[in-house]
Amino acid sequence: MPKTESPAPAIDFALNPLNRQGHKRQRAAWLRQQLAAEAALFVPFWQEKPFILAPLRNGEGRDTGWLTQAQTKPLRNAAHAPLFLGINRNAKPLFAFELADASACRDLQKLGAFEDLRALALAGDMRAAELGILAQAKALLHWHRTHPHCARCGAATEMAEGGYKRRCPSCSAEHFPRTDPVVIMLPSFRDSCLLGRQKGWPNGMYSALAGFVEPGETLEAAVARELEEEAGLTVRAVRYRMSQPWPFPAQLMIGCTAEAESRALQLDGVELEDARWVKRAEIVQALAGNHPSLAVPPPMAIAHHLIRHFAEG
Amino acid sequence: MPKTESPAPAIDFALNPLNRQGHKRQRAAWLRQQLAAEAALFVPFWQEKPFILAPLRNGEGRDTGWLTQAQTKPLRNAAHAPLFLGINRNAKPLFAFELADASACRDLQKLGAFEDLRALALAGDMRAAELGILAQAKALLHWHRTHPHCARCGAATEMAEGGYKRRCPSCSAEHFPRTDPVVIMLPSFRDSCLLGRQKGWPNGMYSALAGFVEPGETLEAAVARELEEEAGLTVRAVRYRMSQPWPFPAQLMIGCTAEAESRALQLDGVELEDARWVKRAEIVQALAGNHPSLAVPPPMAIAHHLIRHFAEG
Repeated sequence: MPKTESPAPAIDFALNPLNRQGHKRQRAAWLRQQLAAEAALFVPFWQEKPFILAPLRNGEGRDTGWLTQAQTKPLRNAAHAPLFLGINRNAKPLFAFELADASACRDLQKLGAFEDLRALALAGDMRAAELGILAQAKALLHWHRTHPHCARCGAATEMAEGGYKRRCPSCSAEHFPRTDPVVIMLPSFRDSCLLGRQKGWPNGMYSALAGFVEPGETLEAAVARELEEEAGLTVRAVRYRMSQPWPFPAQLMIGCTAEAESRALQLDGVELEDARWVKRAEIVQALAGNHPSLAVPPPMAIAHHLIRHFAEG
Repeated sequence: MPKTESPAPAIDFALNPLNRQGHKRQRAAWLRQQLAAEAALFVPFWQEKPFILAPLRNGEGRDTGWLTQAQTKPLRNAAHAPLFLGINRNAKPLFAFELADASACRDLQKLGAFEDLRALALAGDMRAAELGILAQAKALLHWHRTHPHCARCGAATEMAEGGYKRRCPSCSAEHFPRTDPVVIMLPSFRDSCLLGRQKGWPNGMYSALAGFVEPGETLEAAVARELEEEAGLTVRAVRYRMSQPWPFPAQLMIGCTAEAESRALQLDGVELEDARWVKRAEIVQALAGNHPSLAVPPPMAIAHHLIRHFAEG
């Protein structure tokens, strides 16, 4: 579907080749047809971890555990209703479901295991398109798992439209999956950029500052507010650079750069343990893994790409 | 707070001069102090409409009905708990509250009236900073009004942290105000841009296409998907231009442009009644209000600014 050439680099979870069929999935009859199709494929999740096939040989790439109708039939009794993900390039309808019963997991043990999506992305041995599809599935499954009730009246709600809606049978309210916009930003001043660290991070690890966009804010205002709140920094020329779906649990990371008006920092002592200006030469060293005391996030994180963008001038 | 120079033009609801005090508002004692402060100011809402002072003379600008402690004391018994908006430039803490009782409205009739925020913005006679503050208040009030229950367990929740959280006393879940990212985009092909219209719009009115960002999507992918779904259009070079808070009820509008690969359109017949390519010269005419059959949205809408950006080449 995203046939666009994005100026953004290839970021984990950003590529998703499915045709989501936004209109057709609203029709119950069409959806039932897809769900019953011989070609349909299903990926089970257990506690929001996707099912991943056992590696054929050690060290090889990993594949999503897409199961056929026949393979999933025995599992589906012990599962929540499947969510529709979209139609893939081979015209197959793809679905995801969360198992509700641990015993169903045992039946799958010969084929593979339920693995942490973040760890899979970090390891770098899954295809980008599969990571994107699993990110979509995880964000949706999380929303259903944590929103079984109507926020308006408290009654139990029912899934509709393949998982893109929940309806309240009691007050008729409709609820839609939640995606929370988060700004993540790298301010620069001359040949330095600002990195911060939170308590509990690995020694020497620094990253870009980030925060949720609040009601009544533009992206630019959110960037300015977060930098002011967390680091006492005043910035101008906020520029959008790239975005990334981040299904932990349901963020849309919006990566920006900004120009700081000075080097002066005043840390809030709440969210950040430390923040510091880092010169370009040191960033280059850290990206190469050669810095004696500074580490930056791996390529799975959008922060890495903002930092690399800065390093490349 | 947004001391940044944004490349975006001044868009309604985008300017907000308050210091939201993101960390301090988490402390109940600090918040109580602000709520009791002699300098505190309060804007009442009724059915999500802000209280606006009666104009001093016909044709003059309009002002928010900021009330003092003394003025609001009789109202606050018939109101939901005040939400903290922030500290203004004169060091005054600002709050908003929704009246729960129509009789409380009558007491205010001598001073002013509850007016529709969209109509106020459209009329163009309120200060930009006031519109921004009211947008923040409206988005927050809407969230509280429509989310009194815990989506996880169904119990009634309680407001916390000045309105930036709701807590469930039953299952301890925490809920945060929702902001839904929406992409709105103007694709171009040579000297034309694509505009569409929905059923029920005023005769001749066309605007930029838009849609909600879905779970597991980048901004660029959402733009490409929406244009493919609604208009059968394939685009490349998606570029972010500007954003706008849109509190009807709680969107963040993310304005983009894109380059279409061809003029060929295939309308979905669901969301759009019509879509057409419009030449720059016609856009210039429509912006000036001189086009015989085409109207475009007013400056309060981000679509207007995307269209103007295109017109200016």
